[in-house]
Amino acid sequence: MDKHFFFIAFIFLPLTVLSRSRVVCDTVRSEILNADRHFSVYLPPSYDNECADKKYPVLYLLHGMSQTDMDWVYRGHVQEVADRLAYSGEADEMVIVMPDAGGDIYAGVWNGYFDMPGWSYEKYFFDEFLPYIERKYNIIGDKNHRAVAGLSMGGGGATGYGLWHSDMFSSVYAMSALMDIPEKGAAKFDRPDDKLAILTKTVMERSCICFVKEADDIILGKLRTVKWFIDCGDDDFLLDRNIEFFQAMRDAGVECQFRVRDGGHDWEYWHSALYMCLPFVSRNFK
Amino acid sequence: MDKHFFFIAFIFLPLTVLSRSRVVCDTVRSEILNADRHFSVYLPPSYDNECADKKYPVLYLLHGMSQTDMDWVYRGHVQEVADRLAYSGEADEMVIVMPDAGGDIYAGVWNGYFDMPGWSYEKYFFDEFLPYIERKYNIIGDKNHRAVAGLSMGGGGATGYGLWHSDMFSSVYAMSALMDIPEKGAAKFDRPDDKLAILTKTVMERSCICFVKEADDIILGKLRTVKWFIDCGDDDFLLDRNIEFFQAMRDAGVECQFRVRDGGHDWEYWHSALYMCLPFVSRNFK
Amino acid sequence: MDKHFFFIAFIFLPLTVLSRSRVVCDTVRSEILNADRHFSVYLPPSYDNECADKKYPVLYLLHGMSQTDMDWVYRGHVQEVADRLAYSGEADEMVIVMPDAGGDIYAGVWNGYFDMPGWSYEKYFFDEFLPYIERKYNIIGDKNHRAVAGLSMGGGGATGYGLWHSDMFSSVYAMSALMDIPEKGAAKFDRPDDKLAILTKTVMERSCICFVKEADDIILGKLRTVKWFIDCGDDDFLLDRNIEFFQAMRDAGVECQFRVRDGGHDWEYWHSALYMCLPFVSRNFK
Amino acid sequence: MDKHFFFIAFIFLPLTVLSRSRVVCDTVRSEILNADRHFSVYLPPSYDNECADKKYPVLYLLHGMSQTDMDWVYRGHVQEVADRLAYSGEADEMVIVMPDAGGDIYAGVWNGYFDMPGWSYEKYFFDEFLPYIERKYNIIGDKNHRAVAGLSMGGGGATGYGLWHSDMFSSVYAMSALMDIPEKGAAKFDRPDDKLAILTKTVMERSCICFVKEADDIILGKLRTVKWFIDCGDDDFLLDRNIEFFQAMRDAGVECQFRVRDGGHDWEYWHSALYMCLPFVSRNFK
Repeated sequence: MDKHFFFIAFIFLPLTVLSRSRVVCDTVRSEILNADRHFSVYLPPSYDNECADKKYPVLYLLHGMSQTDMDWVYRGHVQEVADRLAYSGEADEMVIVMPDAGGDIYAGVWNGYFDMPGWSYEKYFFDEFLPYIERKYNIIGDKNHRAVAGLSMGGGGATGYGLWHSDMFSSVYAMSALMDIPEKGAAKFDRPDDKLAILTKTVMERSCICFVKEADDIILGKLRTVKWFIDCGDDDFLLDRNIEFFQAMRDAGVECQFRVRDGGHDWEYWHSALYMCLPFVSRNFK
Repeated sequence: MDKHFFFIAFIFLPLTVLSRSRVVCDTVRSEILNADRHFSVYLPPSYDNECADKKYPVLYLLHGMSQTDMDWVYRGHVQEVADRLAYSGEADEMVIVMPDAGGDIYAGVWNGYFDMPGWSYEKYFFDEFLPYIERKYNIIGDKNHRAVAGLSMGGGGATGYGLWHSDMFSSVYAMSALMDIPEKGAAKFDRPDDKLAILTKTVMERSCICFVKEADDIILGKLRTVKWFIDCGDDDFLLDRNIEFFQAMRDAGVECQFRVRDGGHDWEYWHSALYMCLPFVSRNFK
Repeated sequence: MDKHFFFIAFIFLPLTVLSRSRVVCDTVRSEILNADRHFSVYLPPSYDNECADKKYPVLYLLHGMSQTDMDWVYRGHVQEVADRLAYSGEADEMVIVMPDAGGDIYAGVWNGYFDMPGWSYEKYFFDEFLPYIERKYNIIGDKNHRAVAGLSMGGGGATGYGLWHSDMFSSVYAMSALMDIPEKGAAKFDRPDDKLAILTKTVMERSCICFVKEADDIILGKLRTVKWFIDCGDDDFLLDRNIEFFQAMRDAGVECQFRVRDGGHDWEYWHSALYMCLPFVSRNFK
Repeated sequence: MDKHFFFIAFIFLPLTVLSRSRVVCDTVRSEILNADRHFSVYLPPSYDNECADKKYPVLYLLHGMSQTDMDWVYRGHVQEVADRLAYSGEADEMVIVMPDAGGDIYAGVWNGYFDMPGWSYEKYFFDEFLPYIERKYNIIGDKNHRAVAGLSMGGGGATGYGLWHSDMFSSVYAMSALMDIPEKGAAKFDRPDDKLAILTKTVMERSCICFVKEADDIILGKLRTVKWFIDCGDDDFLLDRNIEFFQAMRDAGVECQFRVRDGGHDWEYWHSALYMCLPFVSRNFK
């Protein structure tokens, strides 16, 4: 073998070192949704090397409207970010589960993380999907080692899951979250079968902001068992609702990190948010 | 028009605001290379709105080995980064020109920014490509408003262009640069027609490090008219050569910024480097 | 001279290189305030080296309640930050003027940047102080090369000066600004000679938020000639008023950067803000 | 109580919330050094609130030449940084111990963390000081919950302590470290009683770089049980020695983070380094 070959090999060695992680694309049959549902799973570098009984913390990472789980993989570059942060020690090795709760809504595909007429996604998520995932993969599977995050519609989903299932997650990281429908966006529902109209109506009914404002002491006590992080760009059209959510949490005495960074409602923001999200959820695994 | 529609429009409004920029894909005939050469050009948001005689500063942005100009567009997300930084004011609106000096070298395609037997790319770049670009697009076209940057092989290209054409550029930003061949990579040249062997030999002969170490006072005086920025990850296999280049510049009294950030030889590094590169070259346009 | 000495000298050489800047402490007689007023001036590294007619852009940097100009020097470390950013090129060399509009308010000393009964500070600032400073020091002295920034009471002062004297400043950077009195802080004015009560009343009457909300198109047109940056910590008790100011600006179509970083109402926040403030005002000098 | 008072109280409330931590200044009698030795201890916010048996991880934080422990307090602002990072969750609550191994060396005061003729500081540190501290304060006191960091001479001290006492520390963070004497600083020792000459000679004999280069597999195995972080500015006169140390570690297969940030050998660098250091050592407590 000549040295020339060695040079080539040497060039790609660092990539190889970091690339033992993998993203698995898989499907699960849902009786609740009466459909096969796609999902992607990031398995960290040591996943295949460790003996079978090593178990990992898990992050559920939710996409936005008209996106699917593949957007986190191809545009969010979740694998590259997670590999880097695990390598430098800034985040723990973890399993990252990306469910598919969307697709092109204008083409008539269901979108949304909450239960709505015709689409019981929340029930599916907690009764079918999550148990299936945590059986199939090497996941610790308790509140202390489970987090949820997401962007836009998925940021609202992550926040809602944290609010209504506070016994399930140790932390929530919401990016550019659809906490409610922005003031000017109140839709007229002239076509009751329109999936976007149904989604809009559901998001309004399940307003994260109202939930916190109306929460009693028992609920607030539960919310304080979760660590919260709200992250939204100064040019994001959803900013005001994120502000309101943060203020509601703060005024209710629920500790909540809040950041407004430079940016809009776009992938540059969400990709960079991963660099804060993965360390945050790692710090709160215990 | 119902409010529903308004909600949808509202969602995508911010994206629209930021997306008036465009990336043009074009081709130029080179007599020197006896070939049609592809290139991409980022035109900033105001480019098409301004009256025809508004002219912009220009950044030449060079890709790495076995890549093409399209990698900066599709994986470097250069348009999104440039839009964001121009919008927030952290970088100037500029034209970003991405030439193609590569492709799959293992499939027998030429790679490289310097002149080598059979591939006079440097001559092409300065005699044909750059003049053609600066005539065709609204570019100011003087040293004070022209910069060059690149990654890996293109980082070495950018550095070399800055060293040997210091009258042409106001600043150079080198990412993970191939400043020379790493120690262990000295190739044996048993196949003199092997394009990778020719590239390797040329990079060694045109070592950026040796050039600085051997530079006389007249050359050093010229190098001091350029602003330099060297940026390389702590896990990059090219780090040591970047250190040597920086040390040579510093010891020769040529002011040179140097950063070692967390990272390897990969797109996460180069993408994040754009957020430092575009403000840097902007600061040095005058 | 032995080598030993050389080692010692070598150790302090880098400090020397960066320390040619100086902070001048000076006093000016004010007829308006009928008092001698103290101030500090940062003169950049090249100030004393350049020929006498080199002129610099200027930043007016305002302190908070019960502080003085010396707090920016001793706790804000303004000299060290400005030296570093000028050395790396991230900010321009500029003159930084720190007026004294305070001292221990609980000890009966006047505080405040606006005109109030018994303390015509704004009149003093624009009629006496600023002209005096710009005559005495090598300052360009036009809107394009003049900026104002400040923290807390001085953040409100900087914002107010920008709003009411938009023809004077190219940019405003407000840190943890007292944009108005926070909701819960509405004071009862039982002692009309109480200087804190007078300050509180004046800040409420000169509310930056109300001014923007009530501004007509002519005023808004003027505000758009200034670049604005609002920076406030997520744990700051003044956050909500900063949010309201940003929202008022955005809704009025006045471009305004907004950041909420991790932090409270303290010097760690303000010191780190200088690293964003000086590059921001530099970008907007032209 | 009028509302006015409330406003004032409200203003200082956030500071109060964050300021329950304290810095204790204390002295210990050393038989080894035959002297009373000063030290400072940062006790985190919950320290006094928790029941007496709550124990904390500990960071030993070492100052530079001609400095004392007070410099970390007054110029490093260690309390403010530690409070902030604990409050936001980016670092654990920990006890931070700042020993005094210095003072004005030009006034004839001993400086240095290693044993040298007349100054057995390393023996004192491990045999007297550390056991005393960990008995007196609520410190867990095992390798997994003990870290060491420092700047300049103290960065070399921290690195040396990590190298020679790898069973004692889980992580080491070295800022602008005196890993060895810089090339040009080799002193002539014409006055054998000169404390700076003795310090210089000792640092050369205890070169961190040589130790790693000469380490056998058993030692390297021990070094791999520690997490390492080397952080040095691009304008620091000690940079080259830090590069050599990192390269030695990397080439010996000891995982080591390395950063070169913008900056020199000054407090702006060391203060900002705390924001990386405290999260780093926290991640490596387990």
